[in-house]
Amino acid sequence: MPKISHRAENMPASPVRKLVPYALQAKQKGIKVYHLNIGQPDIETPQTALDAVKNIDLKVLEYALSEGNLDYRTALKDYYHSLGFTDLTTDNFIVTNGGSEALNFAISTLCDDGDEVIIPEPYYANYNGFTNAINVKVVAIPSTIDTGFALPPIEEFEKKITDKTRAILICNPGNPSGYLYTREELQKLAEIALKHDIVVISDEVYREYVYDGKHQVSMFDFPELAENCIIVDSESKRYSMCGARIGSMITRSKKIHDAAMLFAQARLSPVLLGQIAAAAAHHDDEAYIREVREEYTHRRNLLVDLLNGIPGVICPKPKGAFYCVAELPVEDTDVFAQWLLEHYSHNGETVMVAPMSGFYSNPELGKKQVRIAYVLKEEDLRRSVELLNDALQKYKIEFNL
Amino acid sequence: MPKISHRAENMPASPVRKLVPYALQAKQKGIKVYHLNIGQPDIETPQTALDAVKNIDLKVLEYALSEGNLDYRTALKDYYHSLGFTDLTTDNFIVTNGGSEALNFAISTLCDDGDEVIIPEPYYANYNGFTNAINVKVVAIPSTIDTGFALPPIEEFEKKITDKTRAILICNPGNPSGYLYTREELQKLAEIALKHDIVVISDEVYREYVYDGKHQVSMFDFPELAENCIIVDSESKRYSMCGARIGSMITRSKKIHDAAMLFAQARLSPVLLGQIAAAAAHHDDEAYIREVREEYTHRRNLLVDLLNGIPGVICPKPKGAFYCVAELPVEDTDVFAQWLLEHYSHNGETVMVAPMSGFYSNPELGKKQVRIAYVLKEEDLRRSVELLNDALQKYKIEFNL
Repeated sequence: MPKISHRAENMPASPVRKLVPYALQAKQKGIKVYHLNIGQPDIETPQTALDAVKNIDLKVLEYALSEGNLDYRTALKDYYHSLGFTDLTTDNFIVTNGGSEALNFAISTLCDDGDEVIIPEPYYANYNGFTNAINVKVVAIPSTIDTGFALPPIEEFEKKITDKTRAILICNPGNPSGYLYTREELQKLAEIALKHDIVVISDEVYREYVYDGKHQVSMFDFPELAENCIIVDSESKRYSMCGARIGSMITRSKKIHDAAMLFAQARLSPVLLGQIAAAAAHHDDEAYIREVREEYTHRRNLLVDLLNGIPGVICPKPKGAFYCVAELPVEDTDVFAQWLLEHYSHNGETVMVAPMSGFYSNPELGKKQVRIAYVLKEEDLRRSVELLNDALQKYKIEFNL
Repeated sequence: MPKISHRAENMPASPVRKLVPYALQAKQKGIKVYHLNIGQPDIETPQTALDAVKNIDLKVLEYALSEGNLDYRTALKDYYHSLGFTDLTTDNFIVTNGGSEALNFAISTLCDDGDEVIIPEPYYANYNGFTNAINVKVVAIPSTIDTGFALPPIEEFEKKITDKTRAILICNPGNPSGYLYTREELQKLAEIALKHDIVVISDEVYREYVYDGKHQVSMFDFPELAENCIIVDSESKRYSMCGARIGSMITRSKKIHDAAMLFAQARLSPVLLGQIAAAAAHHDDEAYIREVREEYTHRRNLLVDLLNGIPGVICPKPKGAFYCVAELPVEDTDVFAQWLLEHYSHNGETVMVAPMSGFYSNPELGKKQVRIAYVLKEEDLRRSVELLNDALQKYKIEFNL
């Protein structure tokens, strides 16, 4: 049998993916599974976006431009102008196959083998995948649940910088922690990046979903970082259109843009239909975003209160995105999450959560934690927490915890 | 300014892309440009595919499964059964963002830094991009225009195999040469691959477009290669839906499939709407494929005859795909193609062709050649060749050739 590459052998297998066969088995036994494990909202895609697709008047589904078609880049440019970044033109945007490809382009453009990217942990599990695939090393900066995942003093970042460091990657607001960076923190990050001439890659795909009257500060708010900043954006979460696969990589740096375009050209074209859907969504979205934000606020408040009501559970209140991290009174959430699917049910129902081991560079740090996405409606969230509470009690008895 | 990675700096800039600004300038001067430079057919997408998109009954554009949704993988499986490969199940397929991503997964799954892939040249220019991005080396096997790009004796492949060789990559029928591999050649390739336990990656995206009553032989026709074969497929050319971004990576090897799935999971999901369009196209496509094949046959015959009628032009007749390679009586087609856009027009019209330098590992080999895609209708092809003929005469006079 032919050899598999080391890059493939070393790819992190997501702890959630390992659970998928057990979820399937549960369903085959007729058990209903509440999915709190993935960032797939039940929120409807804007009708304008769906209508734009339904009303296409095309004879040929042609290639889009490698950088994205002008119509959609114009919609993106207008949106960024509305955020206050009026210096941007359609030439600053590269449309990608989801935020995933934007991250891929950003890291490929900056990093060679053995180069390092500093990332505060816990972080989005697939950051490990993208870096690993091209032999780039993640250097983690830890944050912990007992401080609500507050960042360590920004100076800690500077201590990790070596001559191999090419970028600092942040997710703001953060998946999985829901952490929202302050302007002061970002200002310090910008200073460090400039001082060492490295790039801040800012994943801002949850930008609109920030709660309690707060607002996200974008990395683009620091014009001095023009040559040292890449924004990763996506329509997936903003408009609940994860399957449209439309993201973008945005930078003021012509040098970085032009280099990233070479990767964009090699894969020819981003998706045509998704651009049509996303452009339409941008044209008329104020009420939509406001309503969805209210819905998420409501779900977050409900979920966090209910979770903290379970004995032994700790769940800090996230400030943005639509996930929370909870510490459970169990030894190993990989084992517990599998048990929920394999051995537990109540009135024919169970719940699937994401063990946090995959969200840390050192899996041990996430051993007692799970990520819970509040992507389901109130009634389903209530029932899910009820199930979790009941399951924890039975698990405790069964294993003498 | 921060450093750009070597992997970005070394990315081949496509000779065609370098021409794009000149094409744009020509258009801004009001000149009509006939695009023979790209594989974007003017053939209409099947109406069933467009209707499937127009009639979606979805409230949320959700993530598809990382391996592709079951509906579409079932349509793919049925299609492969109709080709005679009845052992395949839906588990053999990974749906990708176009053939591009399938190639990417294949190479990433097999190759580490410094590993080698043997490719007969001239070859699809973006093969250089995918390999370069992950530091994999292309080892070229030359074929030449004077033999109609016939392959050298298959034994030549064996001479190039080193302990770094992980795969032989072929495109059958070939872009850009239109070369169609014989069963005997493929049989020998299979033997060599087995003997050295390397993988044949077979890019078969033009499978349906083979002419003169001939049929393509798939690499899947060699069951002894079960553990040593990956097929790259795509709906882009088959159904003229390049912008749908639906391809697939197919293998009988569970080991290769499972390893490639790790890359598929890292990027979460292929496109949802494209899968809906492609599944519909597969359901009712016999007449469509037959008609399109007849149209391409007609265009090929016309184009090749007209080109060979120009003094000094040599153009072997391709057996498949929808490109031909022509040698022109000029010193450097990069320069000539730019001149066509920058300085030439006739009655307000000009023509854009793809210089072949980008299709060889050694650009010198393609210096006098262009690739011409017969993706335009008869009338436009006739006018394009008329323009090319006229331009070559004027170019000869202007530069005293």
